[in-house]
Amino acid sequence: LAKVLYTQELKTIAIVGVGLIGGSIGLGLRAIGCAARRIGIGRRRESLDKALAYDAVDAVTLDPREGVHEADLVIVCTPIGAISEKFQQIAEHLPDGCLVTDVASTKVEVVALARKHLPSHVRFVGSHPIAGSEKTSVEYARADLFENAVCIVTPTPSSNPEAVESLTAFWRELGGHSRVLSPARHDHVMARISHLPHAVAGALVRLAEKGKSTDYAGTGFGDTTRVASGDPTLWRDIFASNRSAVLKAITMLRRELEAFEDALQNQDDKALVAWLEKAKNSRDAWLRKRYTQKEMGP
Amino acid sequence: LAKVLYTQELKTIAIVGVGLIGGSIGLGLRAIGCAARRIGIGRRRESLDKALAYDAVDAVTLDPREGVHEADLVIVCTPIGAISEKFQQIAEHLPDGCLVTDVASTKVEVVALARKHLPSHVRFVGSHPIAGSEKTSVEYARADLFENAVCIVTPTPSSNPEAVESLTAFWRELGGHSRVLSPARHDHVMARISHLPHAVAGALVRLAEKGKSTDYAGTGFGDTTRVASGDPTLWRDIFASNRSAVLKAITMLRRELEAFEDALQNQDDKALVAWLEKAKNSRDAWLRKRYTQKEMGP
Repeated sequence: LAKVLYTQELKTIAIVGVGLIGGSIGLGLRAIGCAARRIGIGRRRESLDKALAYDAVDAVTLDPREGVHEADLVIVCTPIGAISEKFQQIAEHLPDGCLVTDVASTKVEVVALARKHLPSHVRFVGSHPIAGSEKTSVEYARADLFENAVCIVTPTPSSNPEAVESLTAFWRELGGHSRVLSPARHDHVMARISHLPHAVAGALVRLAEKGKSTDYAGTGFGDTTRVASGDPTLWRDIFASNRSAVLKAITMLRRELEAFEDALQNQDDKALVAWLEKAKNSRDAWLRKRYTQKEMGP
Repeated sequence: LAKVLYTQELKTIAIVGVGLIGGSIGLGLRAIGCAARRIGIGRRRESLDKALAYDAVDAVTLDPREGVHEADLVIVCTPIGAISEKFQQIAEHLPDGCLVTDVASTKVEVVALARKHLPSHVRFVGSHPIAGSEKTSVEYARADLFENAVCIVTPTPSSNPEAVESLTAFWRELGGHSRVLSPARHDHVMARISHLPHAVAGALVRLAEKGKSTDYAGTGFGDTTRVASGDPTLWRDIFASNRSAVLKAITMLRRELEAFEDALQNQDDKALVAWLEKAKNSRDAWLRKRYTQKEMGP
């Protein structure tokens, strides 16, 4: 078990759910010259055929056992709402010492499900590559989807260290910036940078729709609310899976908006500019850092 | 006074403030073959020289009198905070019957300032082309900036009807979708689709900065918060100029978020999906409409 498995040494990689993320992993592995056999596992023949046609995988199967029993790495790429079921389907077929990860948007719940359902002879560590869009099917998969994307790996104190190293190396090979965070910290970070922004985008659209204000909306509104086009069922599952961190983030947002509101209400121009300046400076610093990362490469 | 002046008939157009918007008007006029002399008026020789170099105007001057005294159309393209001063500078030099408009982000205050400062022998109607970005200087000006942009013209009951028609035709000629709204309705619409989204983007950045969550942020966060990079002083003026409508919009946002929060807190999956679905449907409808408009042309 105490072995780091680097991506180029992998022989068989099982991708459970070959959509945008699973498909992009498959294409990315091919692009970096990984010789591993890529097996796509799915529930619908039609989706699997499409994944094959796009060369996202080398072989496909509807049978979880057939798909994973020879794998040295299994990546579960289904949305958070389907993770529990997938873990249960593959659990008894996983070979000894096999690396297992997922790409779901929350991690505390996933880690608990892995502990509950997966056998102790496999090495599970959660992952979350922060890449993708509101498009979710394999047609949109790209070999460079993870290029410069932050890819978070979320070990617990009981995780196998070599598995953690194998997975951080894996995302790095695909072009990502690998980072290690605890599952709980990951979920709080995501509540702030992804889940709350999604809820806020939704609230802005719902509000703008009143009195048909959207008829006048331009590109700024379009950018600010783009994520609100995400799949409602998928997002319900994400919110449900990260309930307490999202509720906490909403409370924090309320406080930020109250400070803004007070400054505006009291005609306190100085406080208003200071509030806006802090936001601008943070946003600009984020953008500069991002560009620097891109120039430096992964 | 009772004459509609179509863009191709204009002889002299004065652009007060040749930045992104003023420069794009100049370039756009050239692109549609308008033969009018385009005069740029500014406060700094350097900016005016740049506007000339980019061919955004045909002539420039630091002297408001020299700039406007022969104009049949004057467009004040300074931010809301400088409008009052500009109106006062040009007021006594405007020729009889001259059309005057502006492009500022709020309209109730601008219309009041026009009534206060501009002589009754000119025909003022406010405009707001919803185009542009967080970049504000003439280097970013583009002849097609108004292509498919909603351009709102905001007459009052006392506005000259031919002036309203002249200005809606003007923005249409530049490629925009001209719409007519009252100043008050305009300001409420803008509070919902632009001013509140700006404040919310700022709040999200400020919150994400806590605990360095931005280190992990991806393109979704980038889109949602892009507008927060706008100039703080400019935005303070916009917020101050539209205080009551923005405060009302914040209250409405709070209500939308509370409905979301309740559904999440109470684990009411059905209400949560319904909330998200309404947002997605509105966002998708907005996008479809926008694309249709683009295909149909202005």
